[in-house]
Amino acid sequence: MSSNATQISLAVVAGDGIGTEVVEQGLLVLDAALAGSGVGVSTTEFDLGARRWHATGETLTDGDLEAIRAHDAILLGAIGDPSVPSGVLERGLLLKLRFALDHYVNLRPGKLFPGVTSPLAAPGDVDFVVVREGTEGPYVGNGGAIRVGTPHEVANEVSVNTAFGVERVVRDAFARAAARPRKKLTLVHKHNVLVHAGHLWRRTVEAVNAEFPDVTVDYLHVDAATIFLVTNPSRFDVIVTDNLFGDILTDLAAAVTGGIGLAASANINPDRTAPSMFEPVHGSAPDIAGQGKADPTATVLSVALLLDHLGLRTQAQAVEDAVAADLAERGAAERVRSTAEVGKDLAARVAG
Amino acid sequence: MSSNATQISLAVVAGDGIGTEVVEQGLLVLDAALAGSGVGVSTTEFDLGARRWHATGETLTDGDLEAIRAHDAILLGAIGDPSVPSGVLERGLLLKLRFALDHYVNLRPGKLFPGVTSPLAAPGDVDFVVVREGTEGPYVGNGGAIRVGTPHEVANEVSVNTAFGVERVVRDAFARAAARPRKKLTLVHKHNVLVHAGHLWRRTVEAVNAEFPDVTVDYLHVDAATIFLVTNPSRFDVIVTDNLFGDILTDLAAAVTGGIGLAASANINPDRTAPSMFEPVHGSAPDIAGQGKADPTATVLSVALLLDHLGLRTQAQAVEDAVAADLAERGAAERVRSTAEVGKDLAARVAG
Ligand SMILES: CC(C)[C@H](C(=O)O)[C@@H](O)C(=O)O
Ligand SMILES: CC(C)[C@H](C(=O)O)[C@@H](O)C(=O)O
Repeated sequence: MSSNATQISLAVVAGDGIGTEVVEQGLLVLDAALAGSGVGVSTTEFDLGARRWHATGETLTDGDLEAIRAHDAILLGAIGDPSVPSGVLERGLLLKLRFALDHYVNLRPGKLFPGVTSPLAAPGDVDFVVVREGTEGPYVGNGGAIRVGTPHEVANEVSVNTAFGVERVVRDAFARAAARPRKKLTLVHKHNVLVHAGHLWRRTVEAVNAEFPDVTVDYLHVDAATIFLVTNPSRFDVIVTDNLFGDILTDLAAAVTGGIGLAASANINPDRTAPSMFEPVHGSAPDIAGQGKADPTATVLSVALLLDHLGLRTQAQAVEDAVAADLAERGAAERVRSTAEVGKDLAARVAG
Repeated sequence: MSSNATQISLAVVAGDGIGTEVVEQGLLVLDAALAGSGVGVSTTEFDLGARRWHATGETLTDGDLEAIRAHDAILLGAIGDPSVPSGVLERGLLLKLRFALDHYVNLRPGKLFPGVTSPLAAPGDVDFVVVREGTEGPYVGNGGAIRVGTPHEVANEVSVNTAFGVERVVRDAFARAAARPRKKLTLVHKHNVLVHAGHLWRRTVEAVNAEFPDVTVDYLHVDAATIFLVTNPSRFDVIVTDNLFGDILTDLAAAVTGGIGLAASANINPDRTAPSMFEPVHGSAPDIAGQGKADPTATVLSVALLLDHLGLRTQAQAVEDAVAADLAERGAAERVRSTAEVGKDLAARVAG
C-alpha cells in the first residue's frame, strides 16, 4: 500500500502454540497505533499450521497462497508443533511463504533496549540489524537421501547461491547501512571453507561497495562473528549474511539483547511484488502455550516493522517508543504480567 | 603408540603467524610433562603453511602426508595468512590433514576454569565437550560454481552426510557421555530445515542410544543451541554435531569460557589408523604475530589432550592441573606475561 492509502489489508497467520496469543496482542497494538490516523486495518485470518495439517493434511495450498498474496502485508505468530513431523510445517508453510513471496530480505534488529538485562556482563551499546538472505542458501530444499535407513545411507543438502540473489540482498544491506549513522557493513560467511559460495558473497560485497562508497565494509567468518556477538556486540552496525548463518546469528543476537521474547523480524520483499511478512523470531513454544506466559513484545516490535514497511513511520516509531518505555519500567515492576496484560499496557502507551 | 612405549614420534606443524610461537611453548610443556616418565619425544618439524606456499606453491604434498602419517601424533599451531587466497591453506592443508587422516572426532572441550572471566554475567559451572564431526558435512569440498563473475553465476556447496560417518562419531560421543558423571548427550542440528541430513543424524542418535541406555539424550536446533550457550551453558554435558555447526558452536563456546586463547582441540582418529592431531581452536592471528602476545594456553591444553590420547593420563592431568593453577592466579597477576613467560611458568608448574 502507499502511504496515502486509508485501508491496510492484513493477512493474519497466527499459527501454532503461543502464536495465537502473541498475534492477538500484536493486533491490539496495531489498532491502537492506527487510531485517529485515518488508516484502517482489515484482517483476514488464515487457519494454517498444525491444527489444519492434522485436520486436512494441508500445509499451504495454492488457494491459500493466492489469497494471502492479495493482502498488503502478513502478520505471522509462530509455526510448528511436536505432533507434526519435523520439517513438514517449516518447509511446507513458513519457508514456502518466504520463498513464494520472494522475501529475500529477512531483517532482524539486534537492539538492547535500556532497562533490559543482557546475559552479558558488559554488553555496551548494542544496536545493529542483521540482513539475512531469505530465498537461497541451504534453505532452498535442494537435498535428498539414498538408501535411507540402511548403513549405506547418504543424505545431502545443497546450498544454492546466485549472483542475482546475493546481489539484491547485499544492495539492500548497503542501502540500510548508508542510512544509519555509523554506515558500517559486516559480511559474515565462511569463505575459507565454503569457497564457491563464500567468494560469490565476497566479490558481490566488493562490487556493490562501489555504489556506496561512504559505507565501511568488513568481513568475519561466521565462527568469529559468534565470538564478537558475545565479547563486543556493539562493534556491529549492519550484518549481511546468508540464510543459515543469519538464522544462527539472529538467535544468538536475540539472546544477547534480552531474549527471543523481544526479537522482531521482517521478511521483506523490497520490490513489493508480493506482501511482506512480519513475525517474532521465536517459535511456537508448546511448553508454555495457552498459559498466558508468552511475551508479546517481539510480535509488537514486528508490528512496528510492518508499519514502517508500509510507510507509516510515525506510527511505527510510536510502537517502538511504547515498547522502549515499557521495557525501561519492567525491572521495577511488582509482578510478571500475562501476555494479554503486556499487550494491553503497550496498546495503552501507544494510544496515550 | 601404546602406553608402555617409551618414545613418542611427534609431527610438528607450527604453521603461520602465532602458530610458531604457541607451538614452541606447547613443546616445552610437553617435555616438562614427560620428564622422568621414561617416555621420550622425538619431533619432526614440517614446514607447511603460507611461507612454504609462497616459496613453492605447495600446500601439502603426498610426500608430506606420508611422512606425517608415520608419526604417533601431530601438534599443529595455526594455519592461514591474509597473503594467501582464502581457502587455499584451509582446504589444501588443514582440512586435507583432517580428512586424509580420518579425524572424524573433532573434540573441543568447553570448560570455564576457576579464575577465568567469562563475558557472561552468570555463566555458572561450565564443563562440556563438543564432539564435532570432522570428515563430512559442508566441509567435504563438494561445491562448485558456473558463470563465475557474471550476473548469472550460481555457486553451490554440498553437505554430504553418510550413515557410516554419522554413526561412528555419534557412537564416540555416546561413549564419552557414558563416561562422564552427568551422562547427557545433546544433538545439535537443524532438522526442521536440513531435513535429509538432519533426519539421518536424529535417527542415528536414536539408534545408538540403545547401546548406551544410561545416557540421556536431547536435541536442539543450532540456532537455539547458541541461545543456551549464552543463557545457560551449564546445561550442556556432551554435544554432538556436524562439521559446520561444530565449527560455529565451538568458537562461541570458547568465547563463553574465556576466549580462544584458552580453547583446545583434538582431531582424533579413534580407530588409530592414522595419527591424531592436536591444535588450539584459534587461528594464526597475523595482527599480533611475532610480538610475544599470543596466549599459548590453548596449545598447552591441546598437549594435554594429546597426552591423554596417547594413554599418558597422569601426564595429561598434570598439564591440565598446571593450566588450572596458572589461570586461577592470573587475576591477581601484576602484569601480562609474554607467550614465552606463560610457557615457562606452565612448564615449571608441570615439573614442580
Ligand atoms: C522455524 C525455522 C524454519 C525458522 C528458520 O530457520 O528460518 C526459524 O528458526 C527462524 O529463524 O525464523
Ligand atoms: C580455519 C578453518 C578451516 C577451521 C575450521 O573451520 O574448521 C577453524 O575455524 C577451526 O575451527 O579449526
